Amino acid sequence: MRFDIITVLPALLESPFAHSILQRAQHKNLVEIHVHNLRDYAKNKQKSVDDYPYGGGSGMVMQIEPFALCIEKLLSERAYDEIIYMTPDGETLNQQIANGLSTKQNLIILCGHYKGIDQRIRDIFVTKEISVGDYVLSGGELPAAIVVDAISRLIPGVLSDETSALSDSFQDGLLDAPIYTRPADWRGHKVPEILLSGHEAKIAAWRDQQQLERTLARRPDLLND
Amino acid sequence: MRFDIITVLPALLESPFAHSILQRAQHKNLVEIHVHNLRDYAKNKQKSVDDYPYGGGSGMVMQIEPFALCIEKLLSERAYDEIIYMTPDGETLNQQIANGLSTKQNLIILCGHYKGIDQRIRDIFVTKEISVGDYVLSGGELPAAIVVDAISRLIPGVLSDETSALSDSFQDGLLDAPIYTRPADWRGHKVPEILLSGHEAKIAAWRDQQQLERTLARRPDLLND
Repeated sequence: MRFDIITVLPALLESPFAHSILQRAQHKNLVEIHVHNLRDYAKNKQKSVDDYPYGGGSGMVMQIEPFALCIEKLLSERAYDEIIYMTPDGETLNQQIANGLSTKQNLIILCGHYKGIDQRIRDIFVTKEISVGDYVLSGGELPAAIVVDAISRLIPGVLSDETSALSDSFQDGLLDAPIYTRPADWRGHKVPEILLSGHEAKIAAWRDQQQLERTLARRPDLLND
Repeated sequence: MRFDIITVLPALLESPFAHSILQRAQHKNLVEIHVHNLRDYAKNKQKSVDDYPYGGGSGMVMQIEPFALCIEKLLSERAYDEIIYMTPDGETLNQQIANGLSTKQNLIILCGHYKGIDQRIRDIFVTKEISVGDYVLSGGELPAAIVVDAISRLIPGVLSDETSALSDSFQDGLLDAPIYTRPADWRGHKVPEILLSGHEAKIAAWRDQQQLERTLARRPDLLND
């Protein structure tokens, strides 16, 4: 799977893609991540990519032309399944969307910055708008990293233990059960006895019950869907 | 405002905190970000901080002791408003939560990795559990960066234009209106004429209407709250 990310801050994305699971996914050639500097597509001397908003108001708006040139170059090289714009008014990312995107081959991700991007980029080029949540951030770079992470770990072979992603929260519509590891007694705080019993069926039943209770207490909305 | 982030992957967080608004916020001494390597608090030779889950199952669980030692060291140095654990089963981050946290002085943020952290850390130390959304990621590092970004930009003085954050999506419970910048005509795709009219009151009314329409079309749930 290939990700092409277009941003004014390519350096911001360096370390998130250079460690842990995303690093290994790239080393295994299961994931390719290409970060493009939007300023390389600015035609003016100052390499500026933004301008004042029409109609007034605070904040700068990212211009069409540099995005258009970068997208058109990429589209001339290969087909893309989606051109995604990270924006707080997009469709809210969830595990189902991540599952769906993990089956694609090539994705372009546009990162906004400043006040956002010219609406015409969205109208003309963007095929999918995704929000990582109902909060405002300084730019689309961290959200793009979130999307790449959420998708990549679902690609077969990326996680060492394939059952790992399937047992994650949300994959079965429930939150995870509490987990514990050694020591069994830490300053008097003990692990639930059932988990030390070695009785697999009882442990499974306890975990099911804990998942249901935690979901009911914290996220009853997940049970209504 | 001070953030203390505890993680097994401090290097992953280098570039997100070294650029753009978070960089400027630190240079202005409005925000301090301290990233602590959890492995520095591991007592064993291998500096391992995880172990197998009690009761079986896939994935590794992060142990209590290293987190406890790091948290206790920080608590011995200053008071903290919250000890936050980033977890998909936490309270879902939204702009209201970010607004609330932006008034605090000192926050500790714990990043989970692998399958998660020993439940006793949550029971004993954690005062607030936050999820950035209903999807699973490789670790709590990107979510921690999201929280730091969402909060920091609300601190007075961090954004150059103070009206900027207040006019963001969600701050008034509505999505943003479409925005445009030059050129007014790009390959035949034109900016709405009203925005070129110079008529401030009409432009404001058009934007209000666009905000309402977009919110109705995309996120009617925001209007019900």
